[in-house]
Amino acid sequence: MTERLYLYDTTLRDGQQTHGVQFSTGEKVRIAGVLDQLGLDYVEGGWPGANPTDSEFFETAPTMRPTLTAFGMTKRAGRSAQNDEVLAAVLNAGTPAVCLVGKTHDFHVSTALGISLEENTENIRQSVAHVVAEGREALFDAEHFFDGWKANRAYALEAVRAAHEAGARWIVLCDTNGGTLPHEVGAIVADVIAAGIPSERLGIHTHDDTGNAVANTLAAVDAGARQIQGTLNGLGERCGNANLTTLIPTLLLKEPYRSAFETGVTMEALAGLSRASRLLDDILNRVPLKQAPYVGGAAFAHKAGLHASAILKDPSTYEHVDPALVGNVRIVPMSNQAGQSNLRRRLAEAGLEVAPGAAALPAILDRVKAREAEGYAYDTAQASFELLARAELGQLPRYFEVERYRVISERRRNARGEVVVESEAVVTVQLPDGSKRTSFFKNEHAQEMQDAGPVNALWQALKSDLGPHSEVVEDMHLVDFKVRITNGGTEAVTRVIIDSSDATGRRWATVGVSANIVDASFEALLDAVTWKLVRDLGTVGAAA
Amino acid sequence: MTERLYLYDTTLRDGQQTHGVQFSTGEKVRIAGVLDQLGLDYVEGGWPGANPTDSEFFETAPTMRPTLTAFGMTKRAGRSAQNDEVLAAVLNAGTPAVCLVGKTHDFHVSTALGISLEENTENIRQSVAHVVAEGREALFDAEHFFDGWKANRAYALEAVRAAHEAGARWIVLCDTNGGTLPHEVGAIVADVIAAGIPSERLGIHTHDDTGNAVANTLAAVDAGARQIQGTLNGLGERCGNANLTTLIPTLLLKEPYRSAFETGVTMEALAGLSRASRLLDDILNRVPLKQAPYVGGAAFAHKAGLHASAILKDPSTYEHVDPALVGNVRIVPMSNQAGQSNLRRRLAEAGLEVAPGAAALPAILDRVKAREAEGYAYDTAQASFELLARAELGQLPRYFEVERYRVISERRRNARGEVVVESEAVVTVQLPDGSKRTSFFKNEHAQEMQDAGPVNALWQALKSDLGPHSEVVEDMHLVDFKVRITNGGTEAVTRVIIDSSDATGRRWATVGVSANIVDASFEALLDAVTWKLVRDLGTVGAAA
Repeated sequence: MTERLYLYDTTLRDGQQTHGVQFSTGEKVRIAGVLDQLGLDYVEGGWPGANPTDSEFFETAPTMRPTLTAFGMTKRAGRSAQNDEVLAAVLNAGTPAVCLVGKTHDFHVSTALGISLEENTENIRQSVAHVVAEGREALFDAEHFFDGWKANRAYALEAVRAAHEAGARWIVLCDTNGGTLPHEVGAIVADVIAAGIPSERLGIHTHDDTGNAVANTLAAVDAGARQIQGTLNGLGERCGNANLTTLIPTLLLKEPYRSAFETGVTMEALAGLSRASRLLDDILNRVPLKQAPYVGGAAFAHKAGLHASAILKDPSTYEHVDPALVGNVRIVPMSNQAGQSNLRRRLAEAGLEVAPGAAALPAILDRVKAREAEGYAYDTAQASFELLARAELGQLPRYFEVERYRVISERRRNARGEVVVESEAVVTVQLPDGSKRTSFFKNEHAQEMQDAGPVNALWQALKSDLGPHSEVVEDMHLVDFKVRITNGGTEAVTRVIIDSSDATGRRWATVGVSANIVDASFEALLDAVTWKLVRDLGTVGAAA
Repeated sequence: MTERLYLYDTTLRDGQQTHGVQFSTGEKVRIAGVLDQLGLDYVEGGWPGANPTDSEFFETAPTMRPTLTAFGMTKRAGRSAQNDEVLAAVLNAGTPAVCLVGKTHDFHVSTALGISLEENTENIRQSVAHVVAEGREALFDAEHFFDGWKANRAYALEAVRAAHEAGARWIVLCDTNGGTLPHEVGAIVADVIAAGIPSERLGIHTHDDTGNAVANTLAAVDAGARQIQGTLNGLGERCGNANLTTLIPTLLLKEPYRSAFETGVTMEALAGLSRASRLLDDILNRVPLKQAPYVGGAAFAHKAGLHASAILKDPSTYEHVDPALVGNVRIVPMSNQAGQSNLRRRLAEAGLEVAPGAAALPAILDRVKAREAEGYAYDTAQASFELLARAELGQLPRYFEVERYRVISERRRNARGEVVVESEAVVTVQLPDGSKRTSFFKNEHAQEMQDAGPVNALWQALKSDLGPHSEVVEDMHLVDFKVRITNGGTEAVTRVIIDSSDATGRRWATVGVSANIVDASFEALLDAVTWKLVRDLGTVGAAA
């Protein structure tokens, strides 16, 4: 016997409150598509009338399976629900469901609204009744409910009862400032049910201000709540909302939830979760959080040598779920704590099968150790690690060699007296047939465009003429560039890590180290290009 | 009546398992200092003998208040605790406390160790007894305890009983793969206590693989555990360990913990928490997580809209705790009174007294806002902030102006066929008297010395001829250089932060932003020099 648990996404409304986030209408449409594919039950699109993007989204809203929901607030005092133009704008969006936020904390009623408790109760009752009379599904968002319950339990319960009696399909208990702890959420939700709001009408909306948004949501479900509100990747004001990207796999994969509940998310959709999470980061141009539960790049990355050998024996020893279920992958990176078993695993993942006990294994480990002592970090730069191993194994062709490069950055005043910054680079490579190619790059429009600096100039010059290989690297992009000063032996050196991607969606990281930041960057660039050539051209017919 | 709750930090050991993190010994020493200041009870320094950095840290370990703890594992089967050289290396670190990890999950005993359950129990008992006999405080880390309890409760309890009977001060229950949920943690901890392990000897060690590390820790404390293991900023393998930066304020500020427990963290130390969190990110050159509970840059950031006016009336309406208690600040939309008084405090710290209501205050706030939108970060770069404010206040002399610079980096083969990397720079400045100075720098010994790159070349050229000011900057050194790719408006830009110091021991940070990393660095260099000139020459007789 499973009960239905409903998932309500508020990425497009509460998620928009994230510090530094501002959605365009096009982005909202793309995100709605992601939510549809995942199998959410409700998508809250925004507050029609409150800002132009939200209004525009509802006008152009895509057809989708989740119930599209408009957000607004209960009517103001001193006018009827019919005559409140803010509420009218919300209803005019024409969505099948409408979610209205209202006060349930006595202190906020008097401080923020400056009206009597009775007036507030009537505002809730009449607003919800109006939404129902218009033939819409009504949701009531009980703002500051948990603080309100602690301050004045009787009034908090009276407020949600008014919404219930007026026909609200859902009463959503909100921990608006995120300060409530899990044991309190459980006890208060149980009390609300005991006070007469049916379990199957109760929703929960939490924030992560104490790092407990997920646990608070689970505590509410344990106590009887049957609708979960949250956002993708935990977007949201301050510390964010309950993270649906974390909650969904827990609900689908872990007991007691897995056996007790049914949601709209299929196991097939769950396998698209990591991709959905990264897509949202892509849309928002945010760096994906590596540590994110289930979907993060490091969520199944193993480091300790102690663990690595056990993982080779049986992955389940150090993994609480199979990463494939959420569309993620296991990473067994290199580090100075790694043993040979770890190394063989890594090599196998790169398509390099090496027999246990092969002489190359200690040679590769020694080389990794020596390079890490110089400041290299193969833990993240897996592509550079693969190239190092290939070199030791005699499986790295010499596609080309760099004879020289020279890069210039200059700040000066141009003829009009404006300050301009320009970079230019020249790179000479030698191809296996002995021929040489020299290519040059300069930003010819430095006055109008921002100069992208010496590393970009080197990259543009390098890729523009690699002879027969130029075509292969054409779809390569540098997507991230990380720099840190570290210790290489006794000297401070610069470590550069470059993330690259290509048209197939592959993404790979390479590393360079030098006291000269340009030279370190160039080394990482060379590895990035070489890795791409290995992948696309293979290693046949060109031994090291 | 309050009970003592002990805080055990494993940033230097489990935190080192973070994907992409590799501490140097110097970094470990700095982090230990941060932990000491916070008031942690135990600092786990690493695994002596397992890797060179850990061994070196214990050799050079600083004197501090927390109990320094070495980590290791229980002895292997087939030898005595006295004859296990891995265990010997751990004890040889000479720490007052030793924490040994051991298996308590039957499946792991047979799969990973390949020994009998009885042998494993004996390994635990003899190892702990050996540590105690050596006069050290013994801790037993019960690996995979929660999974082990679910698979074979009798054996899991037998294993921890063995450690307890052998004299372990603490039995730490570890959720090694992070898959256990809060309601399970609570029930299992209660069962362990019922089975005879005293509450005051029980610790909890959780991971964030389901986003519940904090909640699991609280559930264990609710059930009776009295030692909490975790890391600063939730560093750690995969999704990280329980975040002490989140747990500490909850334990100190929120009920029932605030009244029930006492820790080693004072309210004064708590006010340094945000700084400690950022310091760790600085040391690791990680981008601070804005959404982090309590200490994140957005944790108390309110966005315009529904909440804004209520916040102006009474900030506590939308804040669960006062940000000042954790050393964080409220960020509110609009340049309101709170913003201006904050600003005046910061200016006063820089020796700039500005009257309340002065017209320059909103002008400075606007300029900071505009520059931060471009990618500048004045939180760390206080010297650049001061210069910005001085410019608005008309208190920034023009000591010199840069006419142009040009820097070249080159990799080529020299006459002997060796690869050499060289950088050279030329800088032209104009002095207030109208005279121009052009200076040049080139590493003349590039074959023997490592070339230090374009930023160093620019710095050497710039400082070599500033006319009458050259003498003033002679004792300046660049002590750190941090680079981060960030968003400036719609484009990715490079932010460079440079730390400088001089013979007086002063240390100051400046910032530069540009798509061109060299130009961003040069901007930060210029600010660094200008700040030094302001300090040493004063601002008299040279109005902006």
